[in-house]
Amino acid sequence: MAVYTDVPAEELNAFIAGYDVGRVLSYKGIAEGVENSNYLLHTERGYFILTLYEKRVAAADLPFFLGLMEHLAARGITCPQPVKARSGEILGTLCGRPAALVTFLEGMWMRRIDAKHCAAVGEALAKLHLAGEGFTLRRANALSVRGWRPLFDSCADRVDGVHHGLQDTIRHELDALEASWPSGLPSGVIHADLFPDNVFFLGDRLSGLIDFYFACNDMLAYDVVICLNAWCFEADFSYNVTKGRALLQNYAKVRPLTDAELDAMPLLARGAAMRFLLTRLVDWLNVPPGALVRPKSPQEYFRKLRFHQHAKSVHDYGIEARELA
Amino acid sequence: MAVYTDVPAEELNAFIAGYDVGRVLSYKGIAEGVENSNYLLHTERGYFILTLYEKRVAAADLPFFLGLMEHLAARGITCPQPVKARSGEILGTLCGRPAALVTFLEGMWMRRIDAKHCAAVGEALAKLHLAGEGFTLRRANALSVRGWRPLFDSCADRVDGVHHGLQDTIRHELDALEASWPSGLPSGVIHADLFPDNVFFLGDRLSGLIDFYFACNDMLAYDVVICLNAWCFEADFSYNVTKGRALLQNYAKVRPLTDAELDAMPLLARGAAMRFLLTRLVDWLNVPPGALVRPKSPQEYFRKLRFHQHAKSVHDYGIEARELA
Repeated sequence: MAVYTDVPAEELNAFIAGYDVGRVLSYKGIAEGVENSNYLLHTERGYFILTLYEKRVAAADLPFFLGLMEHLAARGITCPQPVKARSGEILGTLCGRPAALVTFLEGMWMRRIDAKHCAAVGEALAKLHLAGEGFTLRRANALSVRGWRPLFDSCADRVDGVHHGLQDTIRHELDALEASWPSGLPSGVIHADLFPDNVFFLGDRLSGLIDFYFACNDMLAYDVVICLNAWCFEADFSYNVTKGRALLQNYAKVRPLTDAELDAMPLLARGAAMRFLLTRLVDWLNVPPGALVRPKSPQEYFRKLRFHQHAKSVHDYGIEARELA
Repeated sequence: MAVYTDVPAEELNAFIAGYDVGRVLSYKGIAEGVENSNYLLHTERGYFILTLYEKRVAAADLPFFLGLMEHLAARGITCPQPVKARSGEILGTLCGRPAALVTFLEGMWMRRIDAKHCAAVGEALAKLHLAGEGFTLRRANALSVRGWRPLFDSCADRVDGVHHGLQDTIRHELDALEASWPSGLPSGVIHADLFPDNVFFLGDRLSGLIDFYFACNDMLAYDVVICLNAWCFEADFSYNVTKGRALLQNYAKVRPLTDAELDAMPLLARGAAMRFLLTRLVDWLNVPPGALVRPKSPQEYFRKLRFHQHAKSVHDYGIEARELA
């Protein structure tokens, strides 16, 4: 929650003059997104989000992210749609940073998740996976199994300070994940970060998906378990069977899961927990002095990992395989 | 630049149901205001700013601030206008904090100030002073001469670490200010914090004033020199005569300054510099661990104080007394 780059009105006006959106009437830095600077912009033609990409986002990946949003929006997914400049480009430069203008999406993200929300996000995720078909750009998932060991190595000697015994737990788990990580499962474009703050609702209706800056090509079922972790646990880290059922069932209604995907689910869920455990550990152990952002505790994903280590099949997620196939 | 209180959609909907503004369509925490949490809110009836007052703002002062905005808006000043709940109240409670809804003001604040902006702010400040007449609530200025010594005492033993010799400079200056601080000058409601980020422009036209949370009763000319300090110095701390002339002349066109005010101006300007020097010092020396806000350097106001200590009359601000009376 921060704005890293302060955009002077004078530079903004010059930048926006390159678009067919009229004159700028107001803009406010918004306290969302920990990777980029975001402004809510009002022009004579409506409301937009202006994003300046800070250094944590690789400029080379931006055509993938922005192109994907265009692709998905054209296939009926409600997500921010990049606005083309008069030049035809969707990526420009503002205050020395890559910058893009996208349409504004109404809706609010839910802080108190119930099973209705989980059902809606399951359905939306499956639709997203289907809509991603035919998108031709590719981006590898840097935060999948091969990316975890280097993350761990960068902070291994300090993780026991966060939680006693954590270093050994992670090391053994990484050994297991690397030895048995599945391949050959149905793959495509995944969101990879579909947490509650990236899903908007208007009343009970899901009104849109945002923040495609972790999207990549990977196994679709991996995206499902990222959501299971993000949406179906309570504040005390207990798994909520009702929410899990709602999410998985409604996903499978749109895109049935294969037997191989169902078999792999507990393992994939352990991997998804490991991915967020590791990035949160790294952030937790590397808070720069004067940081504007407080990192999230790694504890949560350690507890989720523990849960999945005890799961043997989708039955342990409160549902039978036949309901999802 | 922060949002201190995260408002769940569910609680926001319940709060907004008490107003006649329709259903909430979206809300974004905005990275403005270091004292409060601010959201830009879109409802079926339009755009609003929702403010949650954090503990640095005394709840007892809120009727003064909100009442003043109402009073000024009714007298033609473009400023946020409090929206009444159906109960008739303009102050409610949200997430355990006092909260108010105000109208959204279009415009952008200028990062690069030129003399046109200074002329506009001078005129707007004088109009604000005239429009404040007849406002019946009163609020003492806690950051005027009697408030400075306690601020200094709270950090005196550490200020030399910021700048060598600063402790003696401030002590002698406080002695001088306390001995000769004027009284009996024309008084009324002052904004007391009319910095560039609180003044909106659309093109070259000043489109509104915001952030009345330091407003109080004090000498009007003290407000003028706060603006002189905030608007008429360059980034290298040099005083810009052209900007100063523009601000003072355009103020005086709307409200001519009295001889006593003109005589007191260098002294008032020293006091205004002292006020911001001290609060910045206190903030600078008291950054809490994990702070979300980086304090501004006190250096700037030390340099401005030095400038005013050498000024003998308004002539030193680039203008003659007869042009302002």
